[in-house]
This record gives sequence, C-alpha cells and structure tokens, in this order.
Amino acid sequence: MSGAGPEIERLMALLSKLPGLGPRSARRAALALLKRRDQLLIPLTHAMQDAADKIESCRICGRLSTQNPCTTCVDPMRDETMICVVEEDSALWAMERVGAFTGKYHVLGGLLSALDGIRPEDLRLDSLISRVRSGRVREIIMALPATVEGQTTAHYIADRLKGFDNQVDITFLARGVPVGGDLDWLDDNTIAHAFKSRR
Amino acid sequence: MSGAGPEIERLMALLSKLPGLGPRSARRAALALLKRRDQLLIPLTHAMQDAADKIESCRICGRLSTQNPCTTCVDPMRDETMICVVEEDSALWAMERVGAFTGKYHVLGGLLSALDGIRPEDLRLDSLISRVRSGRVREIIMALPATVEGQTTAHYIADRLKGFDNQVDITFLARGVPVGGDLDWLDDNTIAHAFKSRR
Repeated sequence: MSGAGPEIERLMALLSKLPGLGPRSARRAALALLKRRDQLLIPLTHAMQDAADKIESCRICGRLSTQNPCTTCVDPMRDETMICVVEEDSALWAMERVGAFTGKYHVLGGLLSALDGIRPEDLRLDSLISRVRSGRVREIIMALPATVEGQTTAHYIADRLKGFDNQVDITFLARGVPVGGDLDWLDDNTIAHAFKSRR
Repeated sequence: MSGAGPEIERLMALLSKLPGLGPRSARRAALALLKRRDQLLIPLTHAMQDAADKIESCRICGRLSTQNPCTTCVDPMRDETMICVVEEDSALWAMERVGAFTGKYHVLGGLLSALDGIRPEDLRLDSLISRVRSGRVREIIMALPATVEGQTTAHYIADRLKGFDNQVDITFLARGVPVGGDLDWLDDNTIAHAFKSRR
C-alpha cells in the first residue's frame, strides 16, 4: 500500500512483475508513465494492445511473430537444410542481430528441468522431430545455454534424433573464451573447455 | 534492430524509455510480456488503458488521482490547516506509506532549476498561494529534496509567502542521520547538519 489509489497501485503491482523491475522501480516507472501520458503511456498501451492482438507463436518454428507461419519459415532465401535450436525468442533475436546464420530456427519454449518440472512434452520437441522427418534438414545447430539444463536438453534431443544419424549432423556452438574476455575473470570450466578445444 | 519484427521492436523501444530499463532489460521485459500474454500482457495493458482514461491531476493539490478534486482534498478527516509541499507524487506516496501526516498535500510538479530552465510559472505555485490566501492554512511543511534545487524552491516559496507571516508557519523536514545509518557512510554535510541540530 503506497497511498496512490487502487488504479495506480494495480499499475505498480503489474509493472513490478516485469523482469528487472522491483517494487521501487515499478513505482518510478508508473510515475514516469503517468507524467508522460501522451509521449509514453498511450503509445506503450497501444504497442502492447497491438502485440496482444497480433503476435502469436509460429506453428512451424514456434517463434513470436505477427505472421503464421513466420517470415523466417516462409523466406525462400533462408537455407531450409539447417535448423538452429534455441530456448527462447531472445536467443533467436541475438542470433539475428549477429546476422551470421542464414538457416531456419526452432524455438523450444524452455529447457528440460527436473527441478522446475519441465518435461519433454512441455517443449516444442515433436514438431522439431517432424521437421527433421520431412527429410530436407541436414544440420541441427544446438544454440542452447551452456548450463546443466541446456546441455541436458541438447543431449535429450540428440538422443531422440538417433534414427536420423545418416541424414542429419548435430552440431553445438563452440565453447571458449569470449571475445575481449580476460582469463582472470573466467570460470575454470570455460578455461578448461577453451584449452581442450584449442586450434 | 534485433530481428524480432517491427511490432516487437516498437514494444521494446517504448519499454526502454521507462526509468530503470535499458535496451537489454527492455528486451527481457518484452519477452516476459509476450510469453505471459494472459497473466501479464493483457492485465497490464488494461491497467495502463484504465490509467490513461481515468487518472488526472487534482485541480486543488495537483496529485494524480481518478477523482478531481482528489480523495485527500475532499477528505473531512484530514487537517486542512496543514499543507505538505512535495516535488512529485512519489514523495506524496512515500509520506502516505509512513502514515505520520494527516494534513493535505500540494504537488509542485517539479523544482526550480536554472540549468533545466524550470521557472516558477512551470510549477503549481499560484494555486499554492491561493490555498494559503483562502485563510485556513496554518502550517506549510516543505518536504522537498535536500538538493540545491529543492532548497532553492523551498526558499522561493517561503519568499512568496512573506505576506502571510502572521498566519502561516513554514517548516522543513529535519536533516540528520537516517535511521540505521552509519556515520562512516554519510556525507560530511549531513553529519554537520545532524551535529548542529542535536537534541
């Protein structure tokens, strides 16, 4: 309770659910919105309404898009023999910012996690298998986080794709020292990986 | 450009204008909204639409409220002989959270600042003088920031109220050591203030 009235309290409570905003920054955000009604509150409300109305998950790759299938899936310029598997759209956006990948994507929508109770049927795995089964895919690139869950998920997928060994290569993003990374600041595992994979 | 499509890009760009969110946290916030469409995106959109439709500045005290005059201004239980002058609604909300003040408020909407070109006519000053002139006010409490702008504004207001010396006391929030504050972490000015005002 901050004495701001129920409408503003509700706005603050919902804003505080955004990642990166706590109760205090949610109050500042609410005040910024209310003070900049025409420049920020109304445009952002419209952008959010627009997103809620138009954006859905692509029925082929699962990415968030206003088109279904999404522009990447229907783009004839993109190599349909390569599928880059990512956890979330944020990883796909990062790959697209880099611009190095010209194939298609598959967004799992999460990672296997015994702790969080996320099972294979909670992820977009069947649709990935179907895409491989269609016969055009030659390489699956696992662009999953270098965490226990990321690696468990990658190995689970590799296992499920065992039957397609002759058709499909499964590759992983290289592990190593980040560009500009100082050895002194890196964890031992990363250094060990980078050493083993030296070229 | 993050390859997320124009609607999501626009959402990210607007979210990054909120205080406390940069480009990266705006991307995370946009993804959180899109992934939690029914639990977060739609409720927050409605709360913002509601705020944009209903919330305005009270014509007496200037606070943001769905009612005009606001509930504080019309509340007969609140002492109309005391007015607490604050910079923004956030300071008013903080005072209300504490619950120690039972009078009325006046929200200036900013502070005088030669640097930012904020002049007396940009603040809600005339309406404050009118409220004092109405004759019921006995105390003006300056709850303004302990900054150069805050103090300049407080002194400017005190100057404008010179004519009401017999009627109105002007008081300031005490300066001193914050509760739980360690002297070692405090700036010298605060310590000097706290020493001078020792009781």
